[in-house]
Amino acid sequence: MFASNNILNKTLLAASIIFATSLHAAEQVDLMITDATVLTMNSEKAIHENGTVVIKGNKIIAVGDAKLAQQYQANIVMDVDGDIVMPGLINTHTHASMTVFRSLADDVPGRLHRYIFPLEKKLVSRDMVRIGANLGNLEMVKGGVTTYSDMYYFEDEVAKTVDKIGMRAILGETVIKFPVADAQNAQEGIQYALKFIEEYKDHPRITPAFAPHAPYTNTTEVLQQITKLAKEHNVPVLIHLAESDRENEKIAARADGKSPVEYMDSIGSLDERLVAAHMINVSESDIELVKKAGTGVAHNMSANIKSAKGVSPALKMYDEDIRIGLGTDGPMSGNTLSTIDEFNQVAKVHKLVNQDRGAMPPVKVIDMATMGAARALHMEDKIGSLEVGKLADVIVIDTKAPNMVPMYNPYSVLVYSANSGNVRHSIVAGKVIMQDRNMLTVNEKNIIEEAIEFTKKVRQTVIENGEKVI
Amino acid sequence: MFASNNILNKTLLAASIIFATSLHAAEQVDLMITDATVLTMNSEKAIHENGTVVIKGNKIIAVGDAKLAQQYQANIVMDVDGDIVMPGLINTHTHASMTVFRSLADDVPGRLHRYIFPLEKKLVSRDMVRIGANLGNLEMVKGGVTTYSDMYYFEDEVAKTVDKIGMRAILGETVIKFPVADAQNAQEGIQYALKFIEEYKDHPRITPAFAPHAPYTNTTEVLQQITKLAKEHNVPVLIHLAESDRENEKIAARADGKSPVEYMDSIGSLDERLVAAHMINVSESDIELVKKAGTGVAHNMSANIKSAKGVSPALKMYDEDIRIGLGTDGPMSGNTLSTIDEFNQVAKVHKLVNQDRGAMPPVKVIDMATMGAARALHMEDKIGSLEVGKLADVIVIDTKAPNMVPMYNPYSVLVYSANSGNVRHSIVAGKVIMQDRNMLTVNEKNIIEEAIEFTKKVRQTVIENGEKVI
Repeated sequence: MFASNNILNKTLLAASIIFATSLHAAEQVDLMITDATVLTMNSEKAIHENGTVVIKGNKIIAVGDAKLAQQYQANIVMDVDGDIVMPGLINTHTHASMTVFRSLADDVPGRLHRYIFPLEKKLVSRDMVRIGANLGNLEMVKGGVTTYSDMYYFEDEVAKTVDKIGMRAILGETVIKFPVADAQNAQEGIQYALKFIEEYKDHPRITPAFAPHAPYTNTTEVLQQITKLAKEHNVPVLIHLAESDRENEKIAARADGKSPVEYMDSIGSLDERLVAAHMINVSESDIELVKKAGTGVAHNMSANIKSAKGVSPALKMYDEDIRIGLGTDGPMSGNTLSTIDEFNQVAKVHKLVNQDRGAMPPVKVIDMATMGAARALHMEDKIGSLEVGKLADVIVIDTKAPNMVPMYNPYSVLVYSANSGNVRHSIVAGKVIMQDRNMLTVNEKNIIEEAIEFTKKVRQTVIENGEKVI
Repeated sequence: MFASNNILNKTLLAASIIFATSLHAAEQVDLMITDATVLTMNSEKAIHENGTVVIKGNKIIAVGDAKLAQQYQANIVMDVDGDIVMPGLINTHTHASMTVFRSLADDVPGRLHRYIFPLEKKLVSRDMVRIGANLGNLEMVKGGVTTYSDMYYFEDEVAKTVDKIGMRAILGETVIKFPVADAQNAQEGIQYALKFIEEYKDHPRITPAFAPHAPYTNTTEVLQQITKLAKEHNVPVLIHLAESDRENEKIAARADGKSPVEYMDSIGSLDERLVAAHMINVSESDIELVKKAGTGVAHNMSANIKSAKGVSPALKMYDEDIRIGLGTDGPMSGNTLSTIDEFNQVAKVHKLVNQDRGAMPPVKVIDMATMGAARALHMEDKIGSLEVGKLADVIVIDTKAPNMVPMYNPYSVLVYSANSGNVRHSIVAGKVIMQDRNMLTVNEKNIIEEAIEFTKKVRQTVIENGEKVI
């Protein structure tokens, strides 16, 4: 009666919360979650107290109240005793492999040119990308993230780690005009991306993508070429957009005073396949252009304020029905990869900047972490809510931890009180990948040890580069 | 060779990280922490890699490097394998018992008058205060808080919970001109406080205090009376000060246009026993007055921005050597009681409002959570740093969790990455009260169940009061 996966079975058999059912005359399913506070995050934001979520294969086949459970016979039943069951979190923007550099030289003036670029020049390799992505993936799963959108180098290595841990991801191979670890110029980057796209185009959980770094680090011709190729191959395009004053100046100089968003629109590259990260310096007319184009937006508030870049008008974009979701940015910027640890900040900082305690209520934050993020990644038909026919990406959040009690309003509890330590279980495509915070698909200890071992190389390289480890 | 406490012994015997030493010709001590990344938070901010902390009775008797361990024979040795060992966190301002109302009607307009006051009128009792404090204490210990400063009613009930769990606290009995649950007016409040002070004045971990609610909710005469009584009894005075525009208007009307700080100074109540919570609306001259008086300041940033009240000039106060430390405010305001979950926000929001990514670096945040907070509470001779002669209030933070790896800079890791789930052990006055997140002094499950049971009363009362549970 149990699922065939061996690792899973061993753990499940040992867990008292999970047991086989023996109802008759009921439809046979794979996994059923019962006695849950189900936040569907559907368009009505329906909540089922004492709710049920039914999973068959990699899909959700029913969501409802307690009675629903009687109609099914499940291989695995998870009675979660009132805990929150919700769509897996979606991190719309990161650079997961950079975890290996995290906590180094934070707040040091000129860090990018003194630390990060010189380190990347010497250390970015298939090994580094794999080690960093493994660590980032682990952190994300433990923080309730089931899908993420990544921009970096050697994304085929990232893909292997995502495949192994069992997450879902959009992986964008970087295209940039400077020589980087896996390409000497933009054309080589495009070729790398094309090969990666060919290799992963049919993977059930991995969506390969182009990631032109930014408008100012690519030529107009390259940006247009990518737009065209992305259309041909039907893949997303990930980019940093409207992130800094300096970017505005550079693009204005290139394009008759246009803003970065106006420029992208004018060259035909602002479209429904694009996911634009940051969007801090945007005008009302920029927002209109983004809305009309159907472009997705990654809102990385916590990272943006760490660098004192300012707060994106994300609430305005959300209220205007722009495709916008939460992202963390890379671990050198944020510094965490778990959006749940940012909910509190997102709600409160938008209240502060709007001078309105009613602004950015918890339900909007959770929407931006789930359905909004799915829309930002153009995946809203597949993930982002617990609805019949969607892929079964589901997380369970402990509601009996001291910081989570009481729970008069589950959105408030999630946004103002929860942290990544409260995530109990994670299910992706119907498969349990974390149970009671234990990883079922990867060896956590090995991943941590390998990452710590790699820090020796980083420390040595920092010193060789004439800087201090601070 | 083990400590005499039975509960402790059972757990310690089972834990592989803790074992008895058998060195000879060495001084006998109670507890020794080895192989630690020791953040002393002394005036030099000394860090000992592979460090040692030695505890005898309730005090720290030595802090240093690995070799130090050879000089002692300890009943208990905790080898923490490189984890961060630092002073217990000090929460300078909260209302712990209000946890029972947490997550109710957040962001609802008029919440104070529609929800909180009517609920408090019907539900504040010895039972409610005990249940709420038990939950709040539990959350704090699990979040690394070893000392807190509380303002509420029936503080003798809070004292019993603090005594039981083994924390340290300053407990301020509220004095306010309106009828409240444990006093009909300010004079009854003062009498209640005096009795409480008498009862707890000699407790080793509990400091009883007066807590006049705010200047505008007490008369000048009452404030002066409390200042005088506090001096006679040598106890602290806790107050809300300079929290809102409305307070400024009220005090200006009462006192010839004076600011709340100027007013307190003019009546002789701004002194070295006072701890002023919030201090949002303060001028340069207010800051000068506070500095001259030696008054402590509780900086509750996360709570203050949730209500869109603004950001206190806490960085300026810190840089001007004011006695200032982090607080959470009550769980209806914050909504967490663990300052570690606010570090990230404190650093980043001060960068944002100062438009400077170098502002409020991690080491200042950690200082404000430890020594700064000790100074704010006028306890810097006893707690706040790991130094010889200080009370042994020590926490151990996991550095091998995915979000904590790598650790090039422990302050950065703590501030930008850590959450309360990363706190492993807690020691107060030399006694281990939490080990590997298991409580050794209280029954966590019972506390949670009792709190959840009490929510039924809260829900019912909300409905009786003609409001909805939202």
